[in-house]
Amino acid sequence: MINEQLTNPKSIVIIGGSNTIRKPGGKIVKNCIDGGYLGELRIVNPKEKQVQGIISYTNVNDIPNTDLAILAIPAKYCLETITVLAEQKNTKAFIIISAGFGETNEIGSHIEKEIVDIINSVNGCLIGPNCIGVLNKNYKGVFTTPIPEYNSKGCDLISGSGATAVFIMEAGMLLGVPFANVYSVGNGAQTGVEDVLEYMDIHYNPDTDPAIKLLYLEAIKDPQKLLKHASSLINKGVKIAAIKAGSTAEGSRAASSHTGAIASSDMTVRALFKKAGIVYCSSREELLSVASIFKYKKLTGKNIAIITHAGGSAVMLADVLSKGGLQIPTIEGEDAKKLETYLYPGSSVSNPIDFLATGTAEQLGIIMDYCEHKFDFIDAMVVVFGSPGLFDVENVYNVLSVKLDVCSKPIFPVLPSVINAHKEIKTFLSKGNINFPDEVVLGKALCEVYKTSSPSLQNIELPKINTTKIRSIIDQATDGYLTPEDTALIIDASGIPRSIEVIENSKENLLSEISQISFPIVMKVVGPLHKSDTQGVILNVNTIEEVSKNFDVLMDIKGAIAVMVQPMLSGLELFVGVKKEPRFNHTILCGLGGIFIEILNDVAAALSPISDIEAQKMIRSLRGYELLQGSRGKDGINEIQFIEIIQRLSALVETAPEITEMDINPLIGTKDAITAVDVRIKIEKI
Amino acid sequence: MINEQLTNPKSIVIIGGSNTIRKPGGKIVKNCIDGGYLGELRIVNPKEKQVQGIISYTNVNDIPNTDLAILAIPAKYCLETITVLAEQKNTKAFIIISAGFGETNEIGSHIEKEIVDIINSVNGCLIGPNCIGVLNKNYKGVFTTPIPEYNSKGCDLISGSGATAVFIMEAGMLLGVPFANVYSVGNGAQTGVEDVLEYMDIHYNPDTDPAIKLLYLEAIKDPQKLLKHASSLINKGVKIAAIKAGSTAEGSRAASSHTGAIASSDMTVRALFKKAGIVYCSSREELLSVASIFKYKKLTGKNIAIITHAGGSAVMLADVLSKGGLQIPTIEGEDAKKLETYLYPGSSVSNPIDFLATGTAEQLGIIMDYCEHKFDFIDAMVVVFGSPGLFDVENVYNVLSVKLDVCSKPIFPVLPSVINAHKEIKTFLSKGNINFPDEVVLGKALCEVYKTSSPSLQNIELPKINTTKIRSIIDQATDGYLTPEDTALIIDASGIPRSIEVIENSKENLLSEISQISFPIVMKVVGPLHKSDTQGVILNVNTIEEVSKNFDVLMDIKGAIAVMVQPMLSGLELFVGVKKEPRFNHTILCGLGGIFIEILNDVAAALSPISDIEAQKMIRSLRGYELLQGSRGKDGINEIQFIEIIQRLSALVETAPEITEMDINPLIGTKDAITAVDVRIKIEKI
Repeated sequence: MINEQLTNPKSIVIIGGSNTIRKPGGKIVKNCIDGGYLGELRIVNPKEKQVQGIISYTNVNDIPNTDLAILAIPAKYCLETITVLAEQKNTKAFIIISAGFGETNEIGSHIEKEIVDIINSVNGCLIGPNCIGVLNKNYKGVFTTPIPEYNSKGCDLISGSGATAVFIMEAGMLLGVPFANVYSVGNGAQTGVEDVLEYMDIHYNPDTDPAIKLLYLEAIKDPQKLLKHASSLINKGVKIAAIKAGSTAEGSRAASSHTGAIASSDMTVRALFKKAGIVYCSSREELLSVASIFKYKKLTGKNIAIITHAGGSAVMLADVLSKGGLQIPTIEGEDAKKLETYLYPGSSVSNPIDFLATGTAEQLGIIMDYCEHKFDFIDAMVVVFGSPGLFDVENVYNVLSVKLDVCSKPIFPVLPSVINAHKEIKTFLSKGNINFPDEVVLGKALCEVYKTSSPSLQNIELPKINTTKIRSIIDQATDGYLTPEDTALIIDASGIPRSIEVIENSKENLLSEISQISFPIVMKVVGPLHKSDTQGVILNVNTIEEVSKNFDVLMDIKGAIAVMVQPMLSGLELFVGVKKEPRFNHTILCGLGGIFIEILNDVAAALSPISDIEAQKMIRSLRGYELLQGSRGKDGINEIQFIEIIQRLSALVETAPEITEMDINPLIGTKDAITAVDVRIKIEKI
Repeated sequence: MINEQLTNPKSIVIIGGSNTIRKPGGKIVKNCIDGGYLGELRIVNPKEKQVQGIISYTNVNDIPNTDLAILAIPAKYCLETITVLAEQKNTKAFIIISAGFGETNEIGSHIEKEIVDIINSVNGCLIGPNCIGVLNKNYKGVFTTPIPEYNSKGCDLISGSGATAVFIMEAGMLLGVPFANVYSVGNGAQTGVEDVLEYMDIHYNPDTDPAIKLLYLEAIKDPQKLLKHASSLINKGVKIAAIKAGSTAEGSRAASSHTGAIASSDMTVRALFKKAGIVYCSSREELLSVASIFKYKKLTGKNIAIITHAGGSAVMLADVLSKGGLQIPTIEGEDAKKLETYLYPGSSVSNPIDFLATGTAEQLGIIMDYCEHKFDFIDAMVVVFGSPGLFDVENVYNVLSVKLDVCSKPIFPVLPSVINAHKEIKTFLSKGNINFPDEVVLGKALCEVYKTSSPSLQNIELPKINTTKIRSIIDQATDGYLTPEDTALIIDASGIPRSIEVIENSKENLLSEISQISFPIVMKVVGPLHKSDTQGVILNVNTIEEVSKNFDVLMDIKGAIAVMVQPMLSGLELFVGVKKEPRFNHTILCGLGGIFIEILNDVAAALSPISDIEAQKMIRSLRGYELLQGSRGKDGINEIQFIEIIQRLSALVETAPEITEMDINPLIGTKDAITAVDVRIKIEKI
């Protein structure tokens, strides 16, 4: 795992360092030299005496002890070299640039594993293989360009794809996004994105460490680690945005063909990001927009003032912000009128504040002062200012720069004149500012950042359930679906209210026992998995004669082993469920039943353990939430109890992690009570 | 309206032309001169003898006859000058750059109107006021930069916002998007975006005119004109994309503060775009992405091959394409295996085709040949190729350029290395190619273009309805809601099946008449508009005694004038409705009833007149469509009849355009029949 030798090596050896800077082995040497690495730089290259002015050793056996080795040699030579370095040269950190390992074939996979074993045996750190390397303030250990200047107030970038890291840096640098540490983890044989984040969390120093982390993930190998350390960092004031690529079947196939990534379902990943407080992004552009927003002051409210000299951009921006849940409140009253007197006739201060094509730098400053000091309800400003190419707008951007510095409210600059104001934008960026060239791209990202909540991992108190009872049932059960009897016991032990039921395979017993249930009743076949498909559910049974006749019909169904009788409940159909993605905590789902899950896919998800606030947010995020509140002359449900049931389900899966799939569908909800009617639980022991 | 004097003036006079090129009046002279205008260029400026080397007249009265006048003088002097030009100088075309008209205040509005009257009186054309001007192959009549080189295969741009036009050109030029004619219509006092489009349609010459039109609209003053000429142009092979800003209440307020635009509801605008075949865009970036896609060959199928040397981009692109309805089909079989032999070990051809960071230009060529000639099911290729900065990728981009030219399948190039391959991208663009720097931005736009259908305006045959009867009822009715009797007659005359009903205000009559309806029945109050809110609907009435009792209860409700009795129908609740936005044709809505419209807002819309195919598309686009097909053990509805009812509603509003609002809610649908149960019609005569 990451260590001092990787982050701050006293000596580096580049195995395969070369004089040909068109090759990775040559370029990485050049980057280390040009980057002003202050430690000992060594080269191993059997064919050269000197590489770019540095003495080259013909054999790795000849070099002195070295902290960090960067390997840019064919895969097949790596194991041997690393063995020497680890066992004889006290090398504790390794970056393998080379490809041809686990991402290629079985043999590669095998070598990769052996390398990890050796490095682990000396308690060393491995980055890669199949990566571009590492950039930090001490050395530039990548074979690629561009190399952004290290900026301790910039963004850390941790990427599962080297090329994507390069493309992110290229696009980011043009916008003015500063970077700090860049880790390309490649195959992540030993150190994955989560591991880098763990290191950054454990060693986090708010005075010296970058407060923005950008992640590009294809596989999440250790979701709990990601969740824990992302949450922890965010609680320390760090901001994190991430792309999890491979969110569709097609994307996942692409990911598999890339670095052998295993896809996790998008819903579960989104649930994890939400729980951690990570902003979910789907593209490099989104990631960089969010990073740029992170660099500015924090948006703490919904109310945005749009300040512009160009109406069109303001209209499009207002559209996207209000669609995304932010507001552009009307500005009016005394102060608004006073502000108007400073602007040219025809200007509008009602928000968007349009101070016309002829608007001046001084006017911009005055408007921003009013938004900062007079209009208390304004939480942030977006300033859109381009240039028709008539004159220099540097004075405008100077005012903007100063306001960015001195105002306490966040200000987001949209400077769209990428040709006319090219020079002035460059000056603006050189002062450490970032530009948003497209107002709508900014607007979308701003909404995404605003709606991402703080981490909700800590101090989650789940309802007390009968864990002893649950464990004893699970421990005795075999893999697959639990029996109706065990299922009922588990639901009872979890404290989830459940419909009375009688299960019998003898008609005589059934008839004698159903006296405890009053008509109308429901009769269901027990045995077949999909009761409805096999016509195994008979509703609205009203007489003993019907019960008797239906019993025979149901027992005739293929696979029938018994008949279940329940009272016929009326109320709203609800649904809760559990899904277990490999390596992730359980995902708990909730929704309305019937068409809402089957046709409309109206489902909310969160990762267990689930707090009451999270459960409430899940319920309230449903498109059909109005029905739960009561609408169209019908009662709603008891929301408090629905929250409790979701939490009890969470407590259950925490007690019985063997549960891989579970449905309570339907639960019948009224304003007084929610009752589980049909439950299926599938377990799998490892 | 647009004329030869505007598009190809033999002489131009710039009123207010100046020597100060930092002012609009100076810059526009410079642009005309630098742009190589070949006709007579004249200046009127009382303070100058010469302006930028051209003789300046002190008074407009002194100039010879002139085709086109460009005015860059204060608003208050414009009317007088235009009067002289129109009446004495045979000037037939005017561009007013100046602001301070309708967008500013009442006085400005008034002057604007007078100017239009004078120009109309000489059958002249006016562009503006409050605009940046016009760019075409003959002259550069704008006061702004940049001025893209006229390219007859480029994009025409027609914009309701001058600054937005500038920002679109700036961003577009950096991507390599070529431009042709640019019209900034400003306040559109005489000539709006629709009018320019009309001219382009009527005079369209496929050999010389640009085949791509980009529109930026804040107001749609004449929706029918836009629909007609956009459809007509698209049917001639032109491609059109448009932003309609002001799609939310906030956006509209912004639009109002800008050029006095009147907002039309977004749903209606989308319906118009869909009918016309215009690609709907929400940002400058989207508009330019779509324009870039338009410049390449047409995508005619769903199956995309992603060709890349950088896995991450391929994964993100696969995600966005498959979410948007396109496919990345697996490539396998004999040819796939053969292709693999030409690539380096570790490459994947399964799609995405990943030929590794080390992949060569030759390999790219071979892969593209296979996609073009061997993989018949592939409809298009996206090539993602950046650079880690090791070597020049010009040879790769050369191969790409040639394939773009010779392949019959569309190819979309994503060249993300905006820094490392800056030079090579520039060369690539100089060959007339366009770059998509972000794969996800391309992916989203590609899906949007693919799902936009051809225009569906022509040859719409509506069902025959009894127009005489309908007109006679409407002609005699007064504004507001029609009476239940008139409503019933109109529904019958439209051929829409309707539930039997008895309406009576005498209990005696009611009791004698309801013998024609069999129990159970529904009883409803007549009079109050919102029946449900006033408890004016009683379901499931089964006996004459209940009818009698309920009659008294209903007649006691405030506003009650009668009681209506209908049979109680069972089936799926459906909904159709009509909404009339000012100036637009009627928008017809359809959906499922109940929670689907009230809570889920699951509604499809189209502009009347509606073809059977459009009606079918509406129905099938509903989220709840599965229910209409029959699902969960329940019958669906008769879709053919639902289509017919939508078309009959369309025929009705075409016959009675006075209908401003109409609901049939619910209609009860079964697999055999659909019956209207509750109908409200509101009319407004002009």
